[in-house]
Amino acid sequence: MNAESIRKLFEQVRRGGLSPDEAVEQLRHLPFEDLGFARVDHHRALRVGMPEVIFGEGKTPAQTAQIFSKLAKHGGNILATRASRGQFLAVRRRVRKAQYREAARAIVLQREQKKVGKGMIAVVSAGTSDIPVAEEAVVTAEIMGNNVERLYDVGVAGIHRLLANRGTLARARVVIVCAGMEGALPSVVGGLIGVPVIAVPTSVGYGAAFKGVAALLGMMNSCASNVSVVNIDNAFGAGYVASLINRLP
Amino acid sequence: MNAESIRKLFEQVRRGGLSPDEAVEQLRHLPFEDLGFARVDHHRALRVGMPEVIFGEGKTPAQTAQIFSKLAKHGGNILATRASRGQFLAVRRRVRKAQYREAARAIVLQREQKKVGKGMIAVVSAGTSDIPVAEEAVVTAEIMGNNVERLYDVGVAGIHRLLANRGTLARARVVIVCAGMEGALPSVVGGLIGVPVIAVPTSVGYGAAFKGVAALLGMMNSCASNVSVVNIDNAFGAGYVASLINRLP
Amino acid sequence: MNAESIRKLFEQVRRGGLSPDEAVEQLRHLPFEDLGFARVDHHRALRVGMPEVIFGEGKTPAQTAQIFSKLAKHGGNILATRASRGQFLAVRRRVRKAQYREAARAIVLQREQKKVGKGMIAVVSAGTSDIPVAEEAVVTAEIMGNNVERLYDVGVAGIHRLLANRGTLARARVVIVCAGMEGALPSVVGGLIGVPVIAVPTSVGYGAAFKGVAALLGMMNSCASNVSVVNIDNAFGAGYVASLINRLP
Amino acid sequence: MNAESIRKLFEQVRRGGLSPDEAVEQLRHLPFEDLGFARVDHHRALRVGMPEVIFGEGKTPAQTAQIFSKLAKHGGNILATRASRGQFLAVRRRVRKAQYREAARAIVLQREQKKVGKGMIAVVSAGTSDIPVAEEAVVTAEIMGNNVERLYDVGVAGIHRLLANRGTLARARVVIVCAGMEGALPSVVGGLIGVPVIAVPTSVGYGAAFKGVAALLGMMNSCASNVSVVNIDNAFGAGYVASLINRLP
Amino acid sequence: MNAESIRKLFEQVRRGGLSPDEAVEQLRHLPFEDLGFARVDHHRALRVGMPEVIFGEGKTPAQTAQIFSKLAKHGGNILATRASRGQFLAVRRRVRKAQYREAARAIVLQREQKKVGKGMIAVVSAGTSDIPVAEEAVVTAEIMGNNVERLYDVGVAGIHRLLANRGTLARARVVIVCAGMEGALPSVVGGLIGVPVIAVPTSVGYGAAFKGVAALLGMMNSCASNVSVVNIDNAFGAGYVASLINRLP
Amino acid sequence: MNAESIRKLFEQVRRGGLSPDEAVEQLRHLPFEDLGFARVDHHRALRVGMPEVIFGEGKTPAQTAQIFSKLAKHGGNILATRASRGQFLAVRRRVRKAQYREAARAIVLQREQKKVGKGMIAVVSAGTSDIPVAEEAVVTAEIMGNNVERLYDVGVAGIHRLLANRGTLARARVVIVCAGMEGALPSVVGGLIGVPVIAVPTSVGYGAAFKGVAALLGMMNSCASNVSVVNIDNAFGAGYVASLINRLP
Amino acid sequence: MNAESIRKLFEQVRRGGLSPDEAVEQLRHLPFEDLGFARVDHHRALRVGMPEVIFGEGKTPAQTAQIFSKLAKHGGNILATRASRGQFLAVRRRVRKAQYREAARAIVLQREQKKVGKGMIAVVSAGTSDIPVAEEAVVTAEIMGNNVERLYDVGVAGIHRLLANRGTLARARVVIVCAGMEGALPSVVGGLIGVPVIAVPTSVGYGAAFKGVAALLGMMNSCASNVSVVNIDNAFGAGYVASLINRLP
Amino acid sequence: MNAESIRKLFEQVRRGGLSPDEAVEQLRHLPFEDLGFARVDHHRALRVGMPEVIFGEGKTPAQTAQIFSKLAKHGGNILATRASRGQFLAVRRRVRKAQYREAARAIVLQREQKKVGKGMIAVVSAGTSDIPVAEEAVVTAEIMGNNVERLYDVGVAGIHRLLANRGTLARARVVIVCAGMEGALPSVVGGLIGVPVIAVPTSVGYGAAFKGVAALLGMMNSCASNVSVVNIDNAFGAGYVASLINRLP
Repeated sequence: MNAESIRKLFEQVRRGGLSPDEAVEQLRHLPFEDLGFARVDHHRALRVGMPEVIFGEGKTPAQTAQIFSKLAKHGGNILATRASRGQFLAVRRRVRKAQYREAARAIVLQREQKKVGKGMIAVVSAGTSDIPVAEEAVVTAEIMGNNVERLYDVGVAGIHRLLANRGTLARARVVIVCAGMEGALPSVVGGLIGVPVIAVPTSVGYGAAFKGVAALLGMMNSCASNVSVVNIDNAFGAGYVASLINRLP
Repeated sequence: MNAESIRKLFEQVRRGGLSPDEAVEQLRHLPFEDLGFARVDHHRALRVGMPEVIFGEGKTPAQTAQIFSKLAKHGGNILATRASRGQFLAVRRRVRKAQYREAARAIVLQREQKKVGKGMIAVVSAGTSDIPVAEEAVVTAEIMGNNVERLYDVGVAGIHRLLANRGTLARARVVIVCAGMEGALPSVVGGLIGVPVIAVPTSVGYGAAFKGVAALLGMMNSCASNVSVVNIDNAFGAGYVASLINRLP
Repeated sequence: MNAESIRKLFEQVRRGGLSPDEAVEQLRHLPFEDLGFARVDHHRALRVGMPEVIFGEGKTPAQTAQIFSKLAKHGGNILATRASRGQFLAVRRRVRKAQYREAARAIVLQREQKKVGKGMIAVVSAGTSDIPVAEEAVVTAEIMGNNVERLYDVGVAGIHRLLANRGTLARARVVIVCAGMEGALPSVVGGLIGVPVIAVPTSVGYGAAFKGVAALLGMMNSCASNVSVVNIDNAFGAGYVASLINRLP
Repeated sequence: MNAESIRKLFEQVRRGGLSPDEAVEQLRHLPFEDLGFARVDHHRALRVGMPEVIFGEGKTPAQTAQIFSKLAKHGGNILATRASRGQFLAVRRRVRKAQYREAARAIVLQREQKKVGKGMIAVVSAGTSDIPVAEEAVVTAEIMGNNVERLYDVGVAGIHRLLANRGTLARARVVIVCAGMEGALPSVVGGLIGVPVIAVPTSVGYGAAFKGVAALLGMMNSCASNVSVVNIDNAFGAGYVASLINRLP
Repeated sequence: MNAESIRKLFEQVRRGGLSPDEAVEQLRHLPFEDLGFARVDHHRALRVGMPEVIFGEGKTPAQTAQIFSKLAKHGGNILATRASRGQFLAVRRRVRKAQYREAARAIVLQREQKKVGKGMIAVVSAGTSDIPVAEEAVVTAEIMGNNVERLYDVGVAGIHRLLANRGTLARARVVIVCAGMEGALPSVVGGLIGVPVIAVPTSVGYGAAFKGVAALLGMMNSCASNVSVVNIDNAFGAGYVASLINRLP
Repeated sequence: MNAESIRKLFEQVRRGGLSPDEAVEQLRHLPFEDLGFARVDHHRALRVGMPEVIFGEGKTPAQTAQIFSKLAKHGGNILATRASRGQFLAVRRRVRKAQYREAARAIVLQREQKKVGKGMIAVVSAGTSDIPVAEEAVVTAEIMGNNVERLYDVGVAGIHRLLANRGTLARARVVIVCAGMEGALPSVVGGLIGVPVIAVPTSVGYGAAFKGVAALLGMMNSCASNVSVVNIDNAFGAGYVASLINRLP
Repeated sequence: MNAESIRKLFEQVRRGGLSPDEAVEQLRHLPFEDLGFARVDHHRALRVGMPEVIFGEGKTPAQTAQIFSKLAKHGGNILATRASRGQFLAVRRRVRKAQYREAARAIVLQREQKKVGKGMIAVVSAGTSDIPVAEEAVVTAEIMGNNVERLYDVGVAGIHRLLANRGTLARARVVIVCAGMEGALPSVVGGLIGVPVIAVPTSVGYGAAFKGVAALLGMMNSCASNVSVVNIDNAFGAGYVASLINRLP
Repeated sequence: MNAESIRKLFEQVRRGGLSPDEAVEQLRHLPFEDLGFARVDHHRALRVGMPEVIFGEGKTPAQTAQIFSKLAKHGGNILATRASRGQFLAVRRRVRKAQYREAARAIVLQREQKKVGKGMIAVVSAGTSDIPVAEEAVVTAEIMGNNVERLYDVGVAGIHRLLANRGTLARARVVIVCAGMEGALPSVVGGLIGVPVIAVPTSVGYGAAFKGVAALLGMMNSCASNVSVVNIDNAFGAGYVASLINRLP
């Protein structure tokens, strides 16, 4: 039921061609889809400041560039995750202001710069191999208008390095922790602070790491109660959730 | 937006208190939930002939009886699956006409008797231990208005017994096959006929049967293309799907 | 025991060379295989309109072309699934009328055009990555003589898009739903309609998606009772089952 | 190194009994534990308003009562999760003001009543079997000072019921979604709102539900980006995380 | 098509009531089942000396006794595996000559005593906890007419005990090896001899033994090429296979 | 203790340099290793007619050729499994009489031709994709001195093809059955015959076939008691076990 | 070959009845088993100070008492793990000096008191639920002659408690760490010290803890290189390994 | 709080500019990180003789060379595991004395040669395919100052080869056992000796070996109590743990 067809219904009522009761009956049998679709816009309105997102993995440079440039015609920020430099070069040919965040394997077009996050998001990673995942969380949180601080290479087997940087954790409003192998870092971090921790298991490790499953299970069973978990390597999801939390009024 | 509040809107328009455009705008901001709820009824209408179903497992006799008698106040058939004789006795005290189908561990109240199924549904089982599951499929299909024929104890290690009963299979419009252990029966049955086969893995077996997982995987990988699968021991689901297929006009 | 050897037996009886009892005895010791084989033809007769099918994956272009052209010597339709453009080019050199359905990665030779399906089959997919799987279901259903309507990109995280297209679902006689990741779409679709839903888990996703296992488990545990499931990415199977259902008289 | 021993060190330096360098050396060899312990208090200070929590499962009534009454000697709220009525009776004999929340299987002693949550937490559940889990989340969020609204029995196979209650979701600052079987509800809820969703897989289901694993995987792979997940049946954890989010300034 | 109906067909041909061609046609349309069923007898004939077998687990004493006594009406041996003493007592009330093999948890009625095995079957077990499984293999092999020798408690962590009994292994025509935990014994035994080894993983162990899965995997991956494997705790199967091998002429 | 050192001990005793008791004592303290090693030869003697085997996978052509030619210096047959044509070419340059069995991906050097098998080994396969595995079993059984008959493409979804060839099965002394996907064929074959069946799960299939795991589980749970199982794709093992059985006197 | 038969051989040689060469030949054909058995004693000698061990789980009080009292007839210490108080009472009736270690669920008879451990073994546990497992490690290490220090309830979510007790860790020669849930503690402990850490995953936890599997995987993937792991709840094994390390000269 | 800032504090106290109490207060509020960091040095001191380690897998030659040469600027040994010859060539261009251990796929720079190990470490492997893993353990143990002896190709299916080399095992102070497939070797080795065994599951095998999982489970469930386990293919970890054990005073 789009605005026009509903308007016509009201018009008929106004002109006396339909009684209110008959109109109610007709309304009931109209497809409510369009009304639903109208609600989408409203819903979209809630999403102001959210980036348009492209999952780059498995797409050709040409495909990536085509989608990216199409989205770029509308306003707002664009983020392509898991994108190669080759994909970026194809994008830049069409969208000159697109930038490549090498460490995060991300292409970004940041046109809105407003900080909507209330506080700082700390992104913590266990080992150097977890950094690409952590950087994707950083880019996601930044493009969604947050201040981000990194705390890298603070794995639990060298606990002093983490403790030496407790200050950063203490200042954060939300903390994202990326860890592979045994995935123990979120538990330790969670025990040190009183704010929500979003844990990202990474596919780092070998053998019984099962490409992130060991870390995922570890995080699921965290003995710290302030930890919730996203999918393996899903740093975008973690950055997104953290951003939603951080923009809560 | 329930009928009443919408009716008021039309009333206002009729009286000239609102222009059609203003009404459209107001309508847009009303909750569309109630409209949705009205649609439920319409949707329910599609469901004529479907039984109300209670999953008996884990419920006390008292709970089962209470739910059963409450549903019995409306018309239509009622089916309580995975129900013990104890649960049945509690039900019968409140609903005199309820019956217990021992072999299927089901309580039924069948008030609509119309056959809505176009053809016959064959329910096939591999071993004697699969019979309780098969019987649940039988009861489900029967209460939903189908003629059912049983073909039991025709496991693949004695293939001649199955072949000797190919006539039953050939007459069926849909076939339900229940099997545990290696779950091979649906493939053989599927190869013998040209109608849809609904496969039900049963939790029969031990050791590497993993409570039905081996059978489930076997059925998933069936080399017969006319096989689709439901959850382990989900004979109700199989009976339900088969009934929907059989009532297609 | 082929027709000829049995005929000879009767001939001998007719001429008095064998008593009926002796003939019965001889019959008993003949291989019953040929009789069985004769039945195959009968069985085949049931299969009229079914395509010959080649599973293209892992075959070389030369192998694919050879099998395809051999099957093409008989009448009827041919479908090669999971076939590359390279395989198609090799096929076309031998079978000029073969066509490539790029989106479905399928080679088809459609010589019978009769619509044997009674109603329409809706093919629904959750995300854009599920489309190749969905298209294989479409091609399968079409070559088996069905009208098909597509409903793509209606994943559950944007439920309004699905609801806005409920009309398509409502018109379908069978619905195929392809979804990866959490595989939730069949449950939602199943709740909206009263006809059978064939669910196809796709290997779309990463991390804990485990190449379709998460979707498979989700579909197995669907809270909608009209859902049955085929193997991961087995869109051919879904199209085949849906076609069998749709051609039921 | 407690304050006293460090003070003595400074005293020695002041009196000239130790050179600053010697003191640094001694300090280096003192246990830094006490300093760390002092920090604990500070850390504890952050925890104001958090309840003391007892995991009731596997504890005898006597054990539960003993721990409960010991904690009750300090101020603040106490929550015993997964506790039976028997455990409650034992507790109440020692702590008269303890109350039993039957539906949540929880014993609570709520002495601080201050609402520290900024907004409302919605607790959503898919089926009636998920309610005990959902209620644990409710109790946890309430004892931590939040307004909670329940939205139960809105599983995805009857999507209209969920949509009809979108208003509740729209008012929430954080949403907890409890679902077993395919665990699809968080994805649908997540798509309807723009605030964080904490998903709790429940062990509800049978067969290939694998005691919550299917639901867990479904939630891990949610196509809605605002979803993070806690352990199977870990409603306390979900309530805790939601409370932390809701109290963010 | 049983002998009688076929005989009638020949009769008609003999009397000229049917031409041979017409008879062939009729034959083609008769159910071939009965012919198949006749073949069953032939097939059964091959089975001379095989016991009738009852899987006792999950059956009540009454059920077990009923099945046992029914089978006892025909000749031949009967074996009920995984049977409790209670089941035995119920059986003995009906079948006086039934005996209970406590260590094997088996009820046997051995009426044929002929040794049909050509050589000796050695049954080897790793630990004392594996003995009930091993004894089931012993009973099975014995009732099927084999000489059996036991070699128990020769686990690989005390390899000298196994080596000290190599003589027994060397005399065997087939060897059954039962082992839980890591399931390493079949590999060691297999390396010592040149005859077939049937490996039975037992559900003995805890933690990562996963109720026999670790042992099953170990045996599947045996570095000895003469090892094949049956299901976890399936000592009956092992005894059966070994007996078939041992009776080969 | 090699022969020489033991001989010296006896020499000393003979010459009176050692009393028998002293000799026993010395013998006890000598390493028994060499005695063990001597036994190897004896053990080897049992192995007459067994081929030397090379597992080709993962070896370079040069490595394969080197090992092959080294083994070729001794008498007896040689079998290299899972070998490419490239590996074969490298082997043939050194060992002119080596032959390549393309379908089995095997290099063979058969110098002993004696048939040591007592009967015929039937090798059965379900689908055309299982043939490479089946052929490896054929080559293995042949090089170990057995008559082999193939029965291919007799999958359970076309059961008539299998039944039409029951004669082959009935003549076999041992049967090897190779099947992927649901792995149901061994159960059906096992039910048709009374001799041992060695089942080989193949890694054929996709999705929930899990590279042979579904087939492996299916075979483990076979309802036919004469089935034992080897590792996924381990056709060599199956051929080896079958050969051992077939050569039993 | 027992001493007597070998002695006879030497006797024959001495008397000239056999040439040394003939004796060597005869020796070669004697069973070497007995020689092996003699070596057992030697091997046993290495085991001085090791307790005799009974795995109590699944044994009746009577069985436990019987085995215990039989072992008690020889000297040395006895340890029965996973034993109930009921089992202990039965044991004590036969062996008056047996003691029950309630917290460890262990029955001990400690007759050798010598400390053979060179240093101290620290037993660390994460949560209070891990204590029964930890205590089994303590009892095992103590009965094998070690000084043990406990460090309990130092889980990683409260890292300060662990750090506050670093002194204990620093003094240990070997450390045993017991942890359930995410199993992160061994990694943190391992990073703090330079001695071997034996990690014991416990079956503590629920849901995705999978009865210790999550902890096991976490420990397997420890980012600390000095960690090795034993089976779930295998505290006896950990105590045993630690004792072996600690007694190394 | 580094030494310098603490020294200044003492200086102030000595000069009377701060009272001891004020100093304590200041100390309390200084970041304790530096103190922690100072402790690192102390901790590092414990690590004398430990090599710096680079995990080569997944790093480019350039990256490997850069990290290697940076570490080479400090004293001590360097070990790069899982490194290709290409990585080595890049390293050698910068660090002339680096050497490549081909069999172990390791780059080493050994500048400290002191033997710190008290005894010998035996490295045992089951099959030739396990040798690269075993060699990594050898290199690790050697660079950490141990005498190492190899015992290769002594898999359990040829137990005599292992027994023939029991002398090597008997001389070892710690034993590392590398095995793939069924992972049975550590149990056998563990039963032969009385010192700690570190088991390394290797990813050798196919099918149900699941890339080392079968071996891992086998080792976890070892019936020898002196076995502990590291991650699949984690020979570095095994070498490291064994070195720690071997250097215990």
